[in-house]
Amino acid sequence: MNIFAKGNPVEVPEGATALDAARAISQGLARVALCATINGKECDLTHPLKEGDELVLHTFDSPQGKWALRHTASHILAQAVKHLFPGAKLAIGPAIEDGFYYDFDLERPLTPDDLEHIEAEMAKIIAADYPLVRFTESREAAIARMEAAGENYKVELIRDLPENVEISFYQQGDFTDLCAGPHALSTGRVKSFKLTQVAGAYWRGNEKNKMLQRVYGTAFEKKADLDAHLKALEEAKKRDHNRLGRELELFTTVDMIGQGLPILLPKGARVIQILQRFVEDEEEKRGFLLTKTPYMAKRDLYKISGHWDHYRDSMFIMGDPEAEGDVFGLRPMTCPFQFQAYLTRTRSYRDLPLRYNETSTLFRNESSGEMHGLIRLRQFTISEGHLACLPEQVEDEFKAILDLIGYLMHSIGLEDQLTYRFSKWDPNNREKYIGSPEEWERTQDLMRQILDHIGIQYTEAEGEAAFYGPKLDIQTKNVFGKEDTLITVQIDFQLAERFGMTYVDRDGTKRYPIIIHRTSIGCYERTLAMLVEKYAGAFPVWLSPEQVRIMTITERGNEWAHQVEAALRAEGIRTSCDLRNEKIGFKIREARGERVPYMLVIGDREAENGTVAVTRRGEGDLGAMALEDIVARIVSDVKTKKLD
Amino acid sequence: MNIFAKGNPVEVPEGATALDAARAISQGLARVALCATINGKECDLTHPLKEGDELVLHTFDSPQGKWALRHTASHILAQAVKHLFPGAKLAIGPAIEDGFYYDFDLERPLTPDDLEHIEAEMAKIIAADYPLVRFTESREAAIARMEAAGENYKVELIRDLPENVEISFYQQGDFTDLCAGPHALSTGRVKSFKLTQVAGAYWRGNEKNKMLQRVYGTAFEKKADLDAHLKALEEAKKRDHNRLGRELELFTTVDMIGQGLPILLPKGARVIQILQRFVEDEEEKRGFLLTKTPYMAKRDLYKISGHWDHYRDSMFIMGDPEAEGDVFGLRPMTCPFQFQAYLTRTRSYRDLPLRYNETSTLFRNESSGEMHGLIRLRQFTISEGHLACLPEQVEDEFKAILDLIGYLMHSIGLEDQLTYRFSKWDPNNREKYIGSPEEWERTQDLMRQILDHIGIQYTEAEGEAAFYGPKLDIQTKNVFGKEDTLITVQIDFQLAERFGMTYVDRDGTKRYPIIIHRTSIGCYERTLAMLVEKYAGAFPVWLSPEQVRIMTITERGNEWAHQVEAALRAEGIRTSCDLRNEKIGFKIREARGERVPYMLVIGDREAENGTVAVTRRGEGDLGAMALEDIVARIVSDVKTKKLD
Repeated sequence: MNIFAKGNPVEVPEGATALDAARAISQGLARVALCATINGKECDLTHPLKEGDELVLHTFDSPQGKWALRHTASHILAQAVKHLFPGAKLAIGPAIEDGFYYDFDLERPLTPDDLEHIEAEMAKIIAADYPLVRFTESREAAIARMEAAGENYKVELIRDLPENVEISFYQQGDFTDLCAGPHALSTGRVKSFKLTQVAGAYWRGNEKNKMLQRVYGTAFEKKADLDAHLKALEEAKKRDHNRLGRELELFTTVDMIGQGLPILLPKGARVIQILQRFVEDEEEKRGFLLTKTPYMAKRDLYKISGHWDHYRDSMFIMGDPEAEGDVFGLRPMTCPFQFQAYLTRTRSYRDLPLRYNETSTLFRNESSGEMHGLIRLRQFTISEGHLACLPEQVEDEFKAILDLIGYLMHSIGLEDQLTYRFSKWDPNNREKYIGSPEEWERTQDLMRQILDHIGIQYTEAEGEAAFYGPKLDIQTKNVFGKEDTLITVQIDFQLAERFGMTYVDRDGTKRYPIIIHRTSIGCYERTLAMLVEKYAGAFPVWLSPEQVRIMTITERGNEWAHQVEAALRAEGIRTSCDLRNEKIGFKIREARGERVPYMLVIGDREAENGTVAVTRRGEGDLGAMALEDIVARIVSDVKTKKLD
Repeated sequence: MNIFAKGNPVEVPEGATALDAARAISQGLARVALCATINGKECDLTHPLKEGDELVLHTFDSPQGKWALRHTASHILAQAVKHLFPGAKLAIGPAIEDGFYYDFDLERPLTPDDLEHIEAEMAKIIAADYPLVRFTESREAAIARMEAAGENYKVELIRDLPENVEISFYQQGDFTDLCAGPHALSTGRVKSFKLTQVAGAYWRGNEKNKMLQRVYGTAFEKKADLDAHLKALEEAKKRDHNRLGRELELFTTVDMIGQGLPILLPKGARVIQILQRFVEDEEEKRGFLLTKTPYMAKRDLYKISGHWDHYRDSMFIMGDPEAEGDVFGLRPMTCPFQFQAYLTRTRSYRDLPLRYNETSTLFRNESSGEMHGLIRLRQFTISEGHLACLPEQVEDEFKAILDLIGYLMHSIGLEDQLTYRFSKWDPNNREKYIGSPEEWERTQDLMRQILDHIGIQYTEAEGEAAFYGPKLDIQTKNVFGKEDTLITVQIDFQLAERFGMTYVDRDGTKRYPIIIHRTSIGCYERTLAMLVEKYAGAFPVWLSPEQVRIMTITERGNEWAHQVEAALRAEGIRTSCDLRNEKIGFKIREARGERVPYMLVIGDREAENGTVAVTRRGEGDLGAMALEDIVARIVSDVKTKKLD
């Protein structure tokens, strides 16, 4: 019979499987194929073919192949754990980006030693090369099987499966797991793997459930790729802001305050102060009017804005939300607050565009599992702004905003790592949004037109819009490759009308302005995280919390050191003197560890000649320099916002 | 018999009254005396004397005399209201600073016309010169009397009086009121009075009770004094930040957000931004380390700090405070948050003093009746700081803090209107505080000693301390004479121990540092209010949201205007161009109304000569000036922080 492999006809015998078809194409392909897609549906290589089937074979080079191999590795992990900890109860064990994990309910916490033993047991299972055999069962039989095995989490999973779903298992040697597949042919296909860490994870991600132990690992086809991945991971870990940011004393968190509520320590607070002043000053130059609006409001405000009906689950509410009288909520967005500045006066078309900005703190009631370092927080501060425009001003203002964002991102060196996402509504989920389908289509068309005029490359994402309008999301990736939104620009045809914001047009009639919601540097905490990871903590001079460390070799240098310090401070340079009675090598190592960009050493010669011996982070020894020369150099680094 | 008037023996007949004694001293004194103090107890002039009594006679010049006269005026007001509105129910009617009020339960709101009618009726009662006659009754009789009169509020007041209190009434003509007195002899003693306003007031100040109508008035002995007072009040009203601050578009409030949650409009936000940068920079120079800590924390933190037990009523709590799991509260103070920065490392005695500062937003759940303008808020931002000191460092650090405060207050021109209050605990109300009486006495002694060493003049106030330690409160008065705390400095021996904050001392033992809690410019919103009132909105140049307005006479000046604007902006001067096709007089009036300090007018001559015609707010026309000269002058005003 004939089937089609990636559209090309291939002749195979009746009853042939995907694996047979792979062999018919080439023995090499059959050796590396991991799973298949037949007529659009992913399946094992053992799946039988029918006349005319459309077949795609997946190797490790494809996402599907990686997924199958790593999912098989997660079953091998579970089998090994059951061998070593027979009382272990299994929860879920999927493949993920770059690896896999399995959640276990165990009597005791796993140690690093345990991970080594588990890896050794996994190697045995791989060496045994057990085939993975798929079979299906009725719901009753499946539940009975898992109950008999004492796997109560699996029983719960089966009970929650929809009625019409086929319930399948995969068996490998003495181990059977509930699984939809697909999988590699046998355990021997997993050539190179590594368990990377253990972390706590609530059953079903709900903090009211039991905390399980999640074992993470990864698997590759080739040992060289695994080694390269582990090395990159080590490098990434060194830059991970959630580790490095704490080591460098930029921030900390404490349990008695809570997750997602970072304490910015003096160095971190200083970087954010520098960024905040930079952004506020640049926005002032570009015609923005600064506001400072309250962080909470009565329920009444949120009912008008739509947050009460469409965003309340993410809000902090003071007291019982259904109580009579005044109920206050912390703000999750600035828009309805900043609108009040517009509403203080009658506005004319001549007053528009009106551009408001604010260094704005917001609060979102994220669940514990979501929180991460300075990236996902319960409280954060953003460079928020709202523009009220005439229809004919929207495109120019939108462009000007992107120009502002480009300038800010260029100045901090993040420009090159940004991508753009056009986030649209989901027309099949209308209760998430306010406004009519016509308004949504019209606004999205306008936004697409502007994006195309500007000529930026963007992807489109359905269901990622704000509840009141489409967004341009400016995306960045953290050091582990996880994507997050850094900046958004939104067009909104809805809220002006809800708040009765009008302007008197040329013809004397009242009209609603179009509102652009935008951030510019985005969330300061998240931007700080990105900067830590980009520069591995070694911020450009203009952003460094401490720009210069002056160090003396003996106390004979103290007087000159103080003069140097005063000269630097007079130019607004952030500096400190290390006059301790310690070896100069020790002082330099400490300053280097703190990533201070300029280290000025003062020995007898420098004190006599009125010079300093300069070491520049990343450049090394620059030799002795006259005071005015080094001051001029540092001032120039700051003024030009030189990037390292 | 002999009595003593202010210590001097006076001979009076047996059975003489205080008034008789006044007559014995001088007929003039008897004419102006209003009440008396006999053996330390205030009473009417009709009170009989006994051999050896110590008598003080009070005229209008004394607080007691003013109080008696104005309290009598409040009875006259109540009598007049009962004449005009027989169904009116009486609540309370005391004398207050600068006047008196009476609260009425009336069927309809009073209008300005009503006030005039009431004043006319009061004039008749004064002309009738009814004597005020005091009598006492048993509790039962008093209740029966007031029930018969339908005065249910009075009945409630009587029922709540302690058992051993004498229940007295004052009768004047057809009017009788429950009152402890003392009063003037007769209604005719009230020579000059005026009703000033009507406002809502809850019965017993509790928003759950009925809203009554409070009629305010004032009374003086001489018409000239009344007129002077009313004129000063008019002047004060013009400066009242709660009115002028809104007129000048510094801030606004809206009902849908809520009371005590002001929206700082661009001009107000700009002034606060200028102040904030000034304070942060000055504090950095003085060795403070900036932090940025979260605005909320789990209940756990507040349990340790003592806020949960001693301050919770003033806090905003998210959700049910008694719920299980994480309960969050907004912070009413920064201390337990900023302490976390100290706790990130082991500290040595060599690290101390450690000085932390923060531009810190706080939240307090004030009741609706307490809120006022920018003075009493639910959310506010202060220049918060905490110092961890060795015992021997406390005095020097305390002095340095007062020096910093003095410099800041001098720079904004508020230095001269400050007074100092030493706020102590109340040893009879120990459950309000943490710590032992010995610790309180020791800390208060230390603080008193420091204050005396520094040599500042201060008053002492019992029961005004923080729950964890005594305070130096730096007080200011608003334009109506109401006193508020602008700045506080506190010494705290308690919280370091509660949070386990230690340092390793010279001998290797761990000790608790002494914590100084301090603000420096205080609450930014309150300081802004004080500045508005002090300068009647005409801020010094360095604080003005707009420092220069450039105005053209015709459009031929536009090009030069833009050059002038660019030259000013290059120096960081806040300026705008008014190029509208309007008369120059109109433009100048508008700029003056907005209190812009420098107005630069550009006509044909100025455009040709490269000059500007300068008008300086408060100085008038300065004539034509070269651009570089006016730029230099304004830069100097800013740099020297010249006060207007």
